[in-house]
Amino acid sequence: MKLREIGEFGLIARIKKSWPASSPQVFQGIGDDAAVSSLLPGNDLVSTVDLLIEDVHFSLSWITPRQLGRKSLAVNLSDLAAMGASPRWMLISLAVPSRLEVEFIDDFFAGLKTLAEAHGVSLIGGDTSSSPDRLFISITLLGEGKKESLLYRHGAQPGDDLYVTGTLGDSILGLRLARDLKGRSSSPEERFLLERHLDPVPRLGEGKILAEKRLAGAMIDVSDGLLSDLTHICEESRVGAVVWAETIPRSKAFRALVPGPPAESWKWALQGGEDYELLFCSPPERASDLQAQAKEWPCGITRIGRIEPLAHGLVVRDEKGPVDPSELKGYDHFA
Amino acid sequence: MKLREIGEFGLIARIKKSWPASSPQVFQGIGDDAAVSSLLPGNDLVSTVDLLIEDVHFSLSWITPRQLGRKSLAVNLSDLAAMGASPRWMLISLAVPSRLEVEFIDDFFAGLKTLAEAHGVSLIGGDTSSSPDRLFISITLLGEGKKESLLYRHGAQPGDDLYVTGTLGDSILGLRLARDLKGRSSSPEERFLLERHLDPVPRLGEGKILAEKRLAGAMIDVSDGLLSDLTHICEESRVGAVVWAETIPRSKAFRALVPGPPAESWKWALQGGEDYELLFCSPPERASDLQAQAKEWPCGITRIGRIEPLAHGLVVRDEKGPVDPSELKGYDHFA
Repeated sequence: MKLREIGEFGLIARIKKSWPASSPQVFQGIGDDAAVSSLLPGNDLVSTVDLLIEDVHFSLSWITPRQLGRKSLAVNLSDLAAMGASPRWMLISLAVPSRLEVEFIDDFFAGLKTLAEAHGVSLIGGDTSSSPDRLFISITLLGEGKKESLLYRHGAQPGDDLYVTGTLGDSILGLRLARDLKGRSSSPEERFLLERHLDPVPRLGEGKILAEKRLAGAMIDVSDGLLSDLTHICEESRVGAVVWAETIPRSKAFRALVPGPPAESWKWALQGGEDYELLFCSPPERASDLQAQAKEWPCGITRIGRIEPLAHGLVVRDEKGPVDPSELKGYDHFA
Repeated sequence: MKLREIGEFGLIARIKKSWPASSPQVFQGIGDDAAVSSLLPGNDLVSTVDLLIEDVHFSLSWITPRQLGRKSLAVNLSDLAAMGASPRWMLISLAVPSRLEVEFIDDFFAGLKTLAEAHGVSLIGGDTSSSPDRLFISITLLGEGKKESLLYRHGAQPGDDLYVTGTLGDSILGLRLARDLKGRSSSPEERFLLERHLDPVPRLGEGKILAEKRLAGAMIDVSDGLLSDLTHICEESRVGAVVWAETIPRSKAFRALVPGPPAESWKWALQGGEDYELLFCSPPERASDLQAQAKEWPCGITRIGRIEPLAHGLVVRDEKGPVDPSELKGYDHFA
């Protein structure tokens, strides 16, 4: 069945039906001019929005509607993870080309819902429209936390150690595979990298613990790529940093399939985007507490560098010494 | 200068520069993974999102970037007006075709800002992207109020009087003019109707007073058209209603330029959308308080009908009696 057959009100009714009418802290959900919800006493509001556009951020030739539903929320959840906040509610703007089937939207929302339920997020509002060409998804995610306990991009201090969760570079390789494979069967390594790109896991639990236990001083999620996101921390904290290229964590699948000379594979991990891992700095005196905590995390953490004084700038070092910035795309963001 | 020349970071920097870094109740605005803000003690969060898509909701051949910026926020403000809530912060998703000039975006934000400042709304976050074809705008507006004092679509009681602010039908005529005129010079009446469509005035002050003084029992803003929006109130309140067609308020410009037989001009006012007036019901015993209050409002209010028991359904009456539903588009929503 095509979307134009059920119309906008039909679509809204369909969405509304699949989401529970009542959720904790929600007084009025979908179905009024606006939603009304309540923060827990003493908490502040944490808000973020992410935009996904067909043929810019994804292609329907290689992502399934379920994966797309999950990923649309995952990228937002990752933003709240990077603050150490607790996600609560979302609003969705959806512009849908009439060529799409109703089943596509059902699957999209089914995927979205699995991740929403896993993190206690309820859908409280939205707006839908037909779209002349492309599918367009904008999700606003609202969460809460205490403003003085959250982690920001500012707050990094010279001398802090620099850490990252999980492994980097998987997603950029997964994106290349997705474009090439277009659904063809693939090896276990290929499937791992594809999943890292198509179904990223936001590090919400880790982010919250880092914030609550004050194990980190500044934090960001790696969405634009490690180099670019570290630049944001440096700019907002007015510090420099050194990254030891060889230490950047890379998965077995990444090492097996990365193109180019193995000695330069870290460049993919340094500059590829959409990893949705957490990049954070932590004072050396918290190192043992941090390591003890991180032992409980399947994704693990890796120390990849150090925060330096602003005057030192942002330097990437490999075994031969400082890397010439001109070799690194995106390096000029910091200039 | 084309947008592709300044890139996404350039665009964000430009937006960030034009908005003050600090706003009341905002702890962290644009420039981190998420924004952090605080509600006033005892208040609840009120959230809404609206989507505007080029060639669906507007055409760049007849709306200026400034008007578009204002209208993108106005439609959201109208949703909060219909709750009786106070707007505070917004997040914007913007997908911009690279054919557009940077000046277009500057003008869009300049327009947006005039309305935002008039209502104390600050921009705390967003996401931007290039768009393959159309301009795409999604604004999430966050506000606050006490959940038990806000007004909802439910809450209408049989016997309540039905009122609307301002005049209806101007916007649909303005839309027709906008499509036809495409910037040509126009008469004062034409300009009035155009402005009603291109630059609607959200009734925030009126909505807040109606809620705070408990002068209304249920409220909605007229965005889909009076008939459609009254249907929402009836459905959510589980009531019927009668509308006296002849009493629907219509402006002088509307009456001068409405197409078709004058005796049927109310059909435009009943079914045209995007009026952004408030439709509300009020118990008869509050009528004198309400009229006294409404005397202070330039837009005024008009009594256009009454809430009836559910079994009576939704009936539109003109001088000849009940109107055959088949004459009215959108009537089947209530069936």
